[in-house]
Amino acid sequence: MTEEHQGKPVDSNLTLEELVPGKDNWHYAQASFQSVDVAEQLTTLLSAEEITACLDLLPLARRTDVFDYLPEGIQEEVATVCSLESLMELLEELPSDSAADLFKLLSTEQQADLLRDLPARNRATLEHLSRYSEGTAGALMTSEISLLPTGINVERALEILRRTAAGSETIYHTYIVDPRHRLVGVVSLRELILSPPKASLDQLMTEELVTILPDQHQQEAARLISRYDLLALPVVDENQRLLGIITYDDAMDVTEEEDTEDMHRGASIMPLEEGLLRTSLFNLYRSRVVWLILLIFANLVSGVGIAFFEDTISAKVALVFFLPLLIGSGGNAGAQASTLMVRGLAVGDVGLGDWTRLLGRELLVAGALGLTMAVAVSPIGMFRGGLDIAFVVGISMIVIVLFGSLLGMSLPFLLHRLKWDPATASTPLVTTLADAGGVVIYFALATWMLGLN
Amino acid sequence: MTEEHQGKPVDSNLTLEELVPGKDNWHYAQASFQSVDVAEQLTTLLSAEEITACLDLLPLARRTDVFDYLPEGIQEEVATVCSLESLMELLEELPSDSAADLFKLLSTEQQADLLRDLPARNRATLEHLSRYSEGTAGALMTSEISLLPTGINVERALEILRRTAAGSETIYHTYIVDPRHRLVGVVSLRELILSPPKASLDQLMTEELVTILPDQHQQEAARLISRYDLLALPVVDENQRLLGIITYDDAMDVTEEEDTEDMHRGASIMPLEEGLLRTSLFNLYRSRVVWLILLIFANLVSGVGIAFFEDTISAKVALVFFLPLLIGSGGNAGAQASTLMVRGLAVGDVGLGDWTRLLGRELLVAGALGLTMAVAVSPIGMFRGGLDIAFVVGISMIVIVLFGSLLGMSLPFLLHRLKWDPATASTPLVTTLADAGGVVIYFALATWMLGLN
Repeated sequence: MTEEHQGKPVDSNLTLEELVPGKDNWHYAQASFQSVDVAEQLTTLLSAEEITACLDLLPLARRTDVFDYLPEGIQEEVATVCSLESLMELLEELPSDSAADLFKLLSTEQQADLLRDLPARNRATLEHLSRYSEGTAGALMTSEISLLPTGINVERALEILRRTAAGSETIYHTYIVDPRHRLVGVVSLRELILSPPKASLDQLMTEELVTILPDQHQQEAARLISRYDLLALPVVDENQRLLGIITYDDAMDVTEEEDTEDMHRGASIMPLEEGLLRTSLFNLYRSRVVWLILLIFANLVSGVGIAFFEDTISAKVALVFFLPLLIGSGGNAGAQASTLMVRGLAVGDVGLGDWTRLLGRELLVAGALGLTMAVAVSPIGMFRGGLDIAFVVGISMIVIVLFGSLLGMSLPFLLHRLKWDPATASTPLVTTLADAGGVVIYFALATWMLGLN
Repeated sequence: MTEEHQGKPVDSNLTLEELVPGKDNWHYAQASFQSVDVAEQLTTLLSAEEITACLDLLPLARRTDVFDYLPEGIQEEVATVCSLESLMELLEELPSDSAADLFKLLSTEQQADLLRDLPARNRATLEHLSRYSEGTAGALMTSEISLLPTGINVERALEILRRTAAGSETIYHTYIVDPRHRLVGVVSLRELILSPPKASLDQLMTEELVTILPDQHQQEAARLISRYDLLALPVVDENQRLLGIITYDDAMDVTEEEDTEDMHRGASIMPLEEGLLRTSLFNLYRSRVVWLILLIFANLVSGVGIAFFEDTISAKVALVFFLPLLIGSGGNAGAQASTLMVRGLAVGDVGLGDWTRLLGRELLVAGALGLTMAVAVSPIGMFRGGLDIAFVVGISMIVIVLFGSLLGMSLPFLLHRLKWDPATASTPLVTTLADAGGVVIYFALATWMLGLN
């Protein structure tokens, strides 16, 4: 499908009448607009039943293409209202990765009915691809690959390609497999059409390839495709047998999805299945409430710290004025440090081995930040409470910013080492922990320096 | 370059001796490894002078490829130590987008020397491409496009393609231009090799295309490529004249870069030019200090709030125990709401038009969250301060969570409407503002409900 998506982008203010101008004008709607835009407009304007009726008016290839771009929730609804024949047509026409995804959405009865009626070859592919769980390279791959045997020449290779192109996701990279289906090389269509017809394919092909195992994480697949600027990444089993390929456009979708997840995790939101507007209110609530409740209990530590220093507070109520400012600054510096680390680890910019070097750098930067902020805040301390308070507030600022920053940079590393997602070291978590530390540091320093106990 | 990057990924523990096994074995190093890996290892292990010496040992095509993957800072250093001839060779061999980037890094004297000696055609391209500022679609495009005239047949088209392929970034999509260089259509290599040799190109080509103007933002280019699964996006001027193309691999790099920027902004860090380990300590300090200082002053508002209610605090010191917990919860809920909005706006999942619907949804979700958290926190209020404190804390929690959430969701919208980057509504900013609001809400409710004034 990949290469042929050309056409006019839909004006996003298009009305339903313009988009779906009645049965007679479907040719207009189907020829001029991009499938992704048609899918989006249908989703915005119509119910699942109406979408199904609209889809039925389209020729099969276009119908499949539009269906492929519908959000998963809508696909599921459409699948429950449409006929078994339509489903069968869709499953046969969809790229195998999308077909497998659709198949997994169906009810057990629908699955059984379909498996009974599907041609044997499609059934095998479907059962094979449905095996890989969501989020793995296997679930992302398509089995519509253009393949060539070893030992042929360029002319013969182009002949085979022309014959088999219709069933392939891309023909710009063709994979060469031995009789046991082991991947031995790749050749680009560019190389093929630029080589003399009698040239040997075995000499032309590139032999050492970047590949991935089917149970590796989809993010790793996207990372490899982006790093090595690949059009497609072959998926092989432990015996180097070719199982499928992952195309660059799927890698782009994975990157967007994973970055969204990381950003949400970074704000203590558990991953959403769908877009913000399509997620149900209950799911939104659920994705947010868990961490909020957990953080209440983490915040209690700050409360306990304050209760412990109640005498200090009663003796110098003016100290409370600086509390939000000091603990806030520690939390903010910590949020910066953790975000830098989480993203650095995610894009492969830093690794576990860089720990000591990063620690040294963070000490220097956080020290400089703390010092600057102490200088900024001291005059206010002077003004509100005199020299001794200014001194306490300044020293506290340096210590708290150092504490927050080191906490913020260490937590993602620690989680990474424990094989957790480093993004779990969210800004709210780091801020809350830095707050608790800040309360204790501030009041302990104040009690000691002002001789209040 | 895009299609031919195949080869073995480098083991990241590879030593310099294995990677650069002496002059005699350069063939090994250059043939078996991916250029991006070689570039990374050279950067990790060697100084700019040593890298320049290593590059000189490589054949031109490979040298250019490795150079293209070096970080910008290193490219700049290499450019200052290498000879004018080497620079000239690089500029001629690099894809035109990279050549323009390199050219912009050079000193004014080097630029003048090079422009004098470069062939006229290259000079024109270079001057043309260097005109577009960083971050625009124009700066991202390459002018190595495979072009076809109108009015020819498939056989002739393939002939032209074969002859001109060497100078094109990709030949999988070929653009058809009229005599005035206006873009009239596109044809894929797949369509060409599957069509009969005598078929007319004008009939085969797709005419309505997704395009972009050179001064549009690079993020928009990446979004179009990802949304429409394009291999390449044509850049045209207002008269529809074809200026260049942006390829999918550049779009992937832009997405990674922009997502990193958004995540950093979300933690109040100003964009970094380079990776975390390669950014100088001073630049790291500078990117973090500005917001930290600004937020100190925002935090003062909380301090002023506390000072205003000093009598209430003195009367019931137990109230301070709940302060971090309540204002922390408001900040956390606000961070969640703003992150959801910022990302939703960035991926185009929500728009300005969805404002009222999102506001209604947020009211319901935040209300439910506040209620749940009030229930969670009331027993603690009961235990620490009795029924009246429990009541004050519970009601405050609901109001503060609602306030934080509405603030968090509104701020990105407001910034977006003012044409600022919504990501400026960072978690620390939202948290700080929610803290200030929380202080006032809590103590005002307490003063009023407990009859303390």
